[in-house]
Amino acid sequence: MENLSSLLMVRQLLERNENGHVIATCRKPAAATGLINMKNKHPERLSILQLDLTSESTIEETSRTVKEKYGVLHLLINASGILSIPDVLHPETTLSKVQKSSLLLSYEVNAIGPILVIKHMWPLLKAGGGHVTDREFAVVANLSARVGSIGDNGLGGWHSYRSSKAALNQLTKTISVEFARRKEPIVCILLHPGTVDTDLSRPFQRNVSPAKLFTKEYSVQKLLSIIDGVKTSDNGKFFAWDGQEIPW
Amino acid sequence: MENLSSLLMVRQLLERNENGHVIATCRKPAAATGLINMKNKHPERLSILQLDLTSESTIEETSRTVKEKYGVLHLLINASGILSIPDVLHPETTLSKVQKSSLLLSYEVNAIGPILVIKHMWPLLKAGGGHVTDREFAVVANLSARVGSIGDNGLGGWHSYRSSKAALNQLTKTISVEFARRKEPIVCILLHPGTVDTDLSRPFQRNVSPAKLFTKEYSVQKLLSIIDGVKTSDNGKFFAWDGQEIPW
Repeated sequence: MENLSSLLMVRQLLERNENGHVIATCRKPAAATGLINMKNKHPERLSILQLDLTSESTIEETSRTVKEKYGVLHLLINASGILSIPDVLHPETTLSKVQKSSLLLSYEVNAIGPILVIKHMWPLLKAGGGHVTDREFAVVANLSARVGSIGDNGLGGWHSYRSSKAALNQLTKTISVEFARRKEPIVCILLHPGTVDTDLSRPFQRNVSPAKLFTKEYSVQKLLSIIDGVKTSDNGKFFAWDGQEIPW
Repeated sequence: MENLSSLLMVRQLLERNENGHVIATCRKPAAATGLINMKNKHPERLSILQLDLTSESTIEETSRTVKEKYGVLHLLINASGILSIPDVLHPETTLSKVQKSSLLLSYEVNAIGPILVIKHMWPLLKAGGGHVTDREFAVVANLSARVGSIGDNGLGGWHSYRSSKAALNQLTKTISVEFARRKEPIVCILLHPGTVDTDLSRPFQRNVSPAKLFTKEYSVQKLLSIIDGVKTSDNGKFFAWDGQEIPW
């Protein structure tokens, strides 16, 4: 929740509904100045909680806090993800540069983390489905990426990122099947935000035409409008920012 | 290489070509009685080398040995994979049983291991493409599974196995794109062996009709005939035992 797109998502969620409560999580709340500024504007409606996707105990602890404070959850957005970390993680340009440590780290943050969050938030989402909101279910939206699509993979490279997102897609689909079978009031979708102008994508924008580069605000607005319009029949599907389904 | 299907694959590879050399790898060669018996029958044409998919140094060491002894590789079959290990790894029946350790272990063995093998064998495959054999390229065949298909996932469950195989599919596709772009004489394919009667599948056969359960011999025979018939245009594709393409 420390990158600018996530911050904009929190802001738009707060601005579009005058009564809604938003819980933002990040690894280091004390250092999250953007969130802290927003909290000063919306002291009653924004909570900032500590959560590290690589630490299941922090996920459990945050779930407990949300349960005690709110009891229910209507929408869960897993918006984090890593592609590149200076001196640690580099998107691979060739097989010969693939490192086990990069594959494992990307998998842990991009695929395992979101799934553990859903695992621990499940009872809250179940309680939140049909409660207060004007629809009969809670929504889980996992931010994936078009480069996670196997069928759409025409360029190669980015092994760690691509495989972690393909795995996230498979895990989300798997969970959506169980929720449907159990008739849980929860709909899970996957979203591709488009190639937005973020710190994450800046080093890799050379090959993207300007017309395809959105502002962060526009991308967040489109993603939230997809979430707004989600139907039960969308459970387990993968949508681009413009609402088009993306092949697996 | 310690399970019976892999052993049958080694046997069929040895029996179908009177001149071909086969290199079988396993974690504990001294305990691999099936391979040792086969080595006694084919002392000149079978090598048994130690390789642990979770240890990149053993993969490098084996690649060096193969290079020194043979110089080239015409076919690489990644036939290993874990679904269930007593007291360690259990195929998940529900999200609430998903454990980070299981996700990581399955990913390490089923997705990362085969990719590191290809990484280190790449120069040998390149040297082997078009060399000796009657075709112009070497073949990499990664054993995947239909349950790794996201599009075909109608039952849910088996989170660790499904996501590791989806990731293997994505990684294999990614590598196939690079090989094609570099005009490497290497074709990569993914194979689904069918639900064969192995120790791996026995606990999970209840839902499979007898007509869909093959003998191991039949499955291995079908997979090798797909490998025999591989064309350049098959690079990056995912085939079932009967030659049908499987959706991602």
